[in-house]
Amino acid sequence: MAEQSEKWVLMVTAQTPTNIAVIKYWGKRDENLILAINDSISVTLDPAHLCTTTTIAVSPSFNQDRMWLNGKEISLAGGRYQSCLREIRARASDVEDEKKGIKITKNDWQNLHVHVASYNNFPTAAGLASSAAGFACLVFSLAKLMNVQEDNGRLSAIARQGSGSACRSLYGGFVKWVMGKEENGSDSIAVPLVDEKHWDELVIIIAVVSSRQKETSSTSGMRETVETSALIEHRAKEVVPKRIIQMEEAIQNRDFPTFAQLTCADSNQFHAVCMDTSPPIFYMNDTSHRQVAYTFDAGPNAVMISRNRKAATLMLQRLLFHFPPNSDTDLNSYVIGDKSILKDAGIQDIKDVEALPPPPEIKDKVPAQKYKGEISYFICTRPGRGPVLLTDESQALLNPETGLPK
Amino acid sequence: MAEQSEKWVLMVTAQTPTNIAVIKYWGKRDENLILAINDSISVTLDPAHLCTTTTIAVSPSFNQDRMWLNGKEISLAGGRYQSCLREIRARASDVEDEKKGIKITKNDWQNLHVHVASYNNFPTAAGLASSAAGFACLVFSLAKLMNVQEDNGRLSAIARQGSGSACRSLYGGFVKWVMGKEENGSDSIAVPLVDEKHWDELVIIIAVVSSRQKETSSTSGMRETVETSALIEHRAKEVVPKRIIQMEEAIQNRDFPTFAQLTCADSNQFHAVCMDTSPPIFYMNDTSHRQVAYTFDAGPNAVMISRNRKAATLMLQRLLFHFPPNSDTDLNSYVIGDKSILKDAGIQDIKDVEALPPPPEIKDKVPAQKYKGEISYFICTRPGRGPVLLTDESQALLNPETGLPK
Repeated sequence: MAEQSEKWVLMVTAQTPTNIAVIKYWGKRDENLILAINDSISVTLDPAHLCTTTTIAVSPSFNQDRMWLNGKEISLAGGRYQSCLREIRARASDVEDEKKGIKITKNDWQNLHVHVASYNNFPTAAGLASSAAGFACLVFSLAKLMNVQEDNGRLSAIARQGSGSACRSLYGGFVKWVMGKEENGSDSIAVPLVDEKHWDELVIIIAVVSSRQKETSSTSGMRETVETSALIEHRAKEVVPKRIIQMEEAIQNRDFPTFAQLTCADSNQFHAVCMDTSPPIFYMNDTSHRQVAYTFDAGPNAVMISRNRKAATLMLQRLLFHFPPNSDTDLNSYVIGDKSILKDAGIQDIKDVEALPPPPEIKDKVPAQKYKGEISYFICTRPGRGPVLLTDESQALLNPETGLPK
Repeated sequence: MAEQSEKWVLMVTAQTPTNIAVIKYWGKRDENLILAINDSISVTLDPAHLCTTTTIAVSPSFNQDRMWLNGKEISLAGGRYQSCLREIRARASDVEDEKKGIKITKNDWQNLHVHVASYNNFPTAAGLASSAAGFACLVFSLAKLMNVQEDNGRLSAIARQGSGSACRSLYGGFVKWVMGKEENGSDSIAVPLVDEKHWDELVIIIAVVSSRQKETSSTSGMRETVETSALIEHRAKEVVPKRIIQMEEAIQNRDFPTFAQLTCADSNQFHAVCMDTSPPIFYMNDTSHRQVAYTFDAGPNAVMISRNRKAATLMLQRLLFHFPPNSDTDLNSYVIGDKSILKDAGIQDIKDVEALPPPPEIKDKVPAQKYKGEISYFICTRPGRGPVLLTDESQALLNPETGLPK
């Protein structure tokens, strides 16, 4: 390395999806290693609509590890970032870029610093599991840069130490986080169940709620639940193991009724143990429960999974009828992601929303309840793929010369 | 009896309190006999503020059992009324009224019909356990009229067959409903823990919520929970038994912190198992949780138990600050029951409510949240006595000559 020019910058860019749990992770048995008290299952969301892109650069000219999130520099001092960096560095291999004349040995990595630039294609504050996609992308791109030979399963155990649910973002489709038994967490990893093509009829609509009260963070919320709820242990030990088996089967068989029943029941039970916590944690506010499968994470946003496009189209019509945008809102920014669902619903502008007839089930109940402005926007998406390396250098977030944000 | 004039009417009038559970009853192991899946503990509320008054008349001239609730005739055909009437008639004894020259033998009761008039001194529809006070009063007055020799504990097992929580209204103070083990329910009875003088510092404020959505009835709600919740059995078998022991001790020792912790935790857990039900049952809507002990029954009304008058006064000031009445509301009908708390709070009219300063804990958060009109009214009350016989005939609800409502 000493023989090389000290000016080189080597970088990789990767994209990682976010995910939403259908059997929930709530409660840790080890706070440091982030080991869960039960298995969980999630669906990976299409990165075209929700994903993190991360570029990592390495250069002998960097004198410290630095990170920029959505263009703003943030500290890497936290234990979670440090765990991920340390674990990946420990697994680094030799890297050679003949074209650029760069050669980095396994041992060099211990002394080289990295620059990380990360960008979410969705609002970070919207409660959409940005830390899951973020830590998964950090670990995946670091591993690519440092030529780590381990598979995504092993990488998931490292991403897990950044944010528990991040381990599930290492794969597309439906993914199980196996809680594992080892004290060191080595067997607490993500396992792909089926890829995103297995059940590609599913349409996922996320309603992002407008006014959000100050919420309990997942970390402190689940700690308080484990410490004070008299029901959480029973959930983790007796209820979830059976549900995991049933859910895996429902996913394999594309059995939507069973899938929907389990998804809704587990979302309810997650919020039930939150309510059984002292003091109780209320993540949901009054939101209607309808035909399709719904699931709520640690926040009021509703995630609705429709069995196919037709059901999703009808669902979106209902949603827009009950939760119309404020009159000054552009429809284009009110329904984002896969806009073809909007087209199928015959909705081109706000006037079409205003003209929507009441859904048949409320025909006789006049006036229909409308909640204008309560939803900030809707995201239409679908099950998606796992992490990918972006080879097109134009997609990098760091300048290939300076290693600083573009 | 044949020798007597057929015109006589004999009657008794009794008053029975309502009660509010601090360790909740939710779930039956026998729907017909109304046998619970766990013990529960309640505090009896002062009948001066919340009670049922029932007059029962008997006359050889009556040709059927009839009942009037709040002045309106209702059917006695339901199984619950029939169980109470049958069980009391089976235990009737000889009755003699020398002054009126009436003599009724044990066997006569099988052929005599009764008229029942019942009146709640609070809105029946307000979700204030009117059926508990109502069935307790029916059974208690029938037992007095028919000279049943059994004690209130045995009577409670009969009232229980009318409405589970009614058994706890047979005593004042704090009362335990022992779930019992017998298949016929004979040991599923109420037991007095301490009388109403034991802890008479407590002040109970009930916030009756204005807009009430259609709610799940307790009967169908608890059936659905028992059938679908994966947590209810664990609650009934593992959690509640420990809480009952701790609660009894807290009540004996007037240990308010423990009492408050258990009361709030059990209310939360009750609503947690409701949420764990498919489809989930939501009884509470967004209501603030503050310093004193709170408990919510199967409805959105909040019951707040303050440790003493001073705490209750501060509580009422806060409640009126956050939940002021609509401007056209008379304060006299907005705070009912023990109005002396209102006086202690220095509030004489609506202007005083409007002038209330923000509570210290929200000093820095401007603007303070106010929910005008969301509460229908507040009831201030306290732990109260058990059932009593009202000997003053002017308090009877039936005409002593005709046996029909006055």
